[in-house]
Amino acid sequence: MAPAKVFGPAMSTNVVRVLVCLEEVGAEYEVVNIDFSTMEHKSPGHLARNPFGQIPAFQDGDVVLFESRAISRYVLRKYKSSNYDFLREGNLKEAALVDVWAEVEAHQYNPAIAPIVYECLILPALRGTPTNQKVVDENLEKLKKVLDVYEARLSKTKYLAGDFVSFADLSHFPYTYYFMKTPYAALFDSYPRVKAWWESLAARPAAKKLSTNMVFQ
Amino acid sequence: MAPAKVFGPAMSTNVVRVLVCLEEVGAEYEVVNIDFSTMEHKSPGHLARNPFGQIPAFQDGDVVLFESRAISRYVLRKYKSSNYDFLREGNLKEAALVDVWAEVEAHQYNPAIAPIVYECLILPALRGTPTNQKVVDENLEKLKKVLDVYEARLSKTKYLAGDFVSFADLSHFPYTYYFMKTPYAALFDSYPRVKAWWESLAARPAAKKLSTNMVFQ
Ligand SMILES: N[C@@H](CCC(=O)N[C@@H](CS)C(=O)NCC(=O)O)C(=O)O
Ligand SMILES: N[C@@H](CCC(=O)N[C@@H](CS)C(=O)NCC(=O)O)C(=O)O
Repeated sequence: MAPAKVFGPAMSTNVVRVLVCLEEVGAEYEVVNIDFSTMEHKSPGHLARNPFGQIPAFQDGDVVLFESRAISRYVLRKYKSSNYDFLREGNLKEAALVDVWAEVEAHQYNPAIAPIVYECLILPALRGTPTNQKVVDENLEKLKKVLDVYEARLSKTKYLAGDFVSFADLSHFPYTYYFMKTPYAALFDSYPRVKAWWESLAARPAAKKLSTNMVFQ
Repeated sequence: MAPAKVFGPAMSTNVVRVLVCLEEVGAEYEVVNIDFSTMEHKSPGHLARNPFGQIPAFQDGDVVLFESRAISRYVLRKYKSSNYDFLREGNLKEAALVDVWAEVEAHQYNPAIAPIVYECLILPALRGTPTNQKVVDENLEKLKKVLDVYEARLSKTKYLAGDFVSFADLSHFPYTYYFMKTPYAALFDSYPRVKAWWESLAARPAAKKLSTNMVFQ
């Protein structure tokens, strides 16, 4: 069968969330760029994949999906093995903790860190707009509260859901990687366990391979 | 074993998301109120359950969880049977479509409908503040775009993930129920398939039972 296709710019955060899962399980895939400069994300071809006109979208045979966290789960479920079990759906309690911390990424961490990455990196690079410092400062305060919780959590378990790497950890990769390229990277120095957790994630071969693409000009 | 405990006011939207799952699978449970007027959600007892100091939290034996969508998945997984299979994790494609539309609820529908429900119902009842019409109007525009997508989707399948009721549908219950109590309920008349879908969800015994509690004074 043809390799799965991921639609979207390979360096986009929500695309990278999917790619890191594909790399972790060693799946074959192909990235098909979607050109925002020509509004390709709102073209009929792309809207057929994602009716909201966003990236990423995904195709694996007759399975067409969107929403990065849903695509990620599909990939991790499909390629699950004793070596690669990032959802732990066979264990009721572990699966629940993976889900809790995956939801925390989506509903607590991402809403705080994403605006900082947008203001410091993405908008200046893509639109040439200056950083809105008020937005950055407000979200740094939110992020600190989230990191307080993570520091306490990671003093009890090695990774967020337990003593095993899970989807919950992987899902943090894209925005955290870019955050470390902003002037606020040193914030993590105040959270030694979070910092060690991040360093162990960033050192994984999947993350290292993908990060060579993740450069804003 | 003692029945599972759900912590939080029984009429709160994110609590109801969990309760509707418990009711659908016929699980025994108990609701333990958390008193916001005394800041009980920020008390050490509650922070031990949910370090973000939010409701709902959940306890089932030694499993302590938070984040409504993670708790819901735990409940639906634990009580899965041939009659009650709302996650479809045994079928790669169906599970993926449940995940896609559950993510759509969390990332597209909820961000549009929640502010309307807050402005029209929750804030006036809880804080006596008047409705901010600008917030309502902006989010009605967003909601219409989401409902356009739902109308197209529900012309192809009976429910969001396919021709079966899933977690993706159930998760829409709390905010949609309250939206129907706002002055904007008639918006759904312009989306006949969405309206029929909603009516079939609202008519389910679990929904009907819970809605007797869902009244803002
Ligand atoms: N919740 C979605 C978010 C996707 C998203 O926001 N994609 C952005 C790029 S990072 C996009 O396509 N924006 C274009 C648009 O919304 O029109 C996911 O996780 O996949
Ligand atoms: N993403 C969370 C949201 C929970 C949430 O926002 N709960 C609100 C009440 S509806 C809360 O506890 N707010 C108090 C606070 O944030 O301090 C979930 O789905 O459980």
